[in-house]
Amino acid sequence: MLGNGPLEAALARIQREVDAAFESILPVPDDTRAQLVEAMRYAAIGGGKRVRPLLTVSVATLHGADRSAAVRVGCAVEAIHAYSLVHDDLPCMDDDDLRHGKPTVHKAFDEATAVLAGDSLHALAFEILSAPETSGDPFVRAELVATLAVASGWGGMAGGQMMDMAAGSQRYDLHTITRLQQLKTGALLSAAVEMGAVLARVPEEGRGHLRAYARDIGLAFQIADDLLDVEGDEALAGKALRKDDAAGKATFVSLMGRNDARRQARALVEQAIGHLGSYGTEADLLRALARYVVERNT
Amino acid sequence: MLGNGPLEAALARIQREVDAAFESILPVPDDTRAQLVEAMRYAAIGGGKRVRPLLTVSVATLHGADRSAAVRVGCAVEAIHAYSLVHDDLPCMDDDDLRHGKPTVHKAFDEATAVLAGDSLHALAFEILSAPETSGDPFVRAELVATLAVASGWGGMAGGQMMDMAAGSQRYDLHTITRLQQLKTGALLSAAVEMGAVLARVPEEGRGHLRAYARDIGLAFQIADDLLDVEGDEALAGKALRKDDAAGKATFVSLMGRNDARRQARALVEQAIGHLGSYGTEADLLRALARYVVERNT
Repeated sequence: MLGNGPLEAALARIQREVDAAFESILPVPDDTRAQLVEAMRYAAIGGGKRVRPLLTVSVATLHGADRSAAVRVGCAVEAIHAYSLVHDDLPCMDDDDLRHGKPTVHKAFDEATAVLAGDSLHALAFEILSAPETSGDPFVRAELVATLAVASGWGGMAGGQMMDMAAGSQRYDLHTITRLQQLKTGALLSAAVEMGAVLARVPEEGRGHLRAYARDIGLAFQIADDLLDVEGDEALAGKALRKDDAAGKATFVSLMGRNDARRQARALVEQAIGHLGSYGTEADLLRALARYVVERNT
Repeated sequence: MLGNGPLEAALARIQREVDAAFESILPVPDDTRAQLVEAMRYAAIGGGKRVRPLLTVSVATLHGADRSAAVRVGCAVEAIHAYSLVHDDLPCMDDDDLRHGKPTVHKAFDEATAVLAGDSLHALAFEILSAPETSGDPFVRAELVATLAVASGWGGMAGGQMMDMAAGSQRYDLHTITRLQQLKTGALLSAAVEMGAVLARVPEEGRGHLRAYARDIGLAFQIADDLLDVEGDEALAGKALRKDDAAGKATFVSLMGRNDARRQARALVEQAIGHLGSYGTEADLLRALARYVVERNT
């Protein structure tokens, strides 16, 4: 099992790779669109833990895919993640002023630019995936697009956010919270893993244990997020915390209590690691990443 | 040359087909995502002239593509058009209360739902295109996605909207207005035509005249829009007019004058029709559509 060192090195490496890819994909044009592209770069470059690209690249390279193609796919997933944060932070949504320790896009630019920057990052994800540089096999490109589009839309992330917006007016039970989080956070984490498998052409019968791994870490990730929202340090998190409680929203922590929530998150991580039993040490990074998901402090 | 009858019948038919396709693609779920899907349906069904899907379906079927697949592709283009209207109408953007003669999405629902409904229609477009029902050929699916993603993002529609948002603070010249409109309106109209050709596997060397046709009608369409903004009837248009002048924005009409603008629009239509010289009567619908673009009163 890897210690923190190799995981930290892997996170630092993917952060550099993703930043470099966005730098090259997003040159600032010499006209009044400059502000739009600056806002996209502000949202996409230099922030975030890059957990999703690391999942994609780890799964893809574990199964023999080319690393630079895998980084492109990871960037597409991260573009969707970044766009969703820009839109979720808007005044009409969660109304947040701080993200990754700096002003949110609508604060640093303006609301109209934030809407358009989110929209443009959304389109960029599909532009990246459908380009021949991502895979020479058009079937792979089309399958990558299909996986990400479903994860992004009303049947995935946007649907989860809608359920979350409605949560203030009704008290959800644990079953509904689980469903909400499987959509809001889980769908994109699962897509990150699945797209690594798609890029590496892992056959359908080899994907079941990867899907189970993704499902378990997705849920563990959200329980850990709810714990961090209660126990975390705002300065370290780089964003406002303790908002769910203020909004009267049910969370895993409010429904289960902190101790049971923490136990459940750890059990899910062990279960996730259990799904990787058919791999040897080559999957240690995925195991370390599963532990990191609940042990991170941001 | 077709009279108004066949074009009107073709528009009525494509309106029915697009509405039916969205009806079947967007069933309302039995949970709190219902409001999101209702808002998507509100934005996508029953409104709009469906000029873009008619372009796609006409070009695709002219070259032998299956009509029901072409309607799916047309729906994807229209989903992007609908999402862009929902976001452009937001208070932080153009702040419009009326669209297609009914309250805009953020008025009929709320702003958060409007942002998410736009985002979900955006994702839906790529979900539709990447599904095997659209084309059995994954190369076609990937190329459709690539064409639409570029047209939708910062290099196309969103970039044009950004230039338009910045137009209040600087007076653009005719060259810049032309560039702005080629992005804001032209990119998606051109994509509608190109995607018809992609679906029908029209070889590269057969696409030049279609691209020239699309470029000319795109520009004519926007000049006609600017004329309608000055001369049109708000009740007939179903939206607020005369906003550009109030915002101090330069338009084709303010820069060229009404008479020259009208002359230019008509010249572009004739030029567009000229690019269809290699087709016989089977392209009469595209010719009639080009004329309709400048002669419509909404």
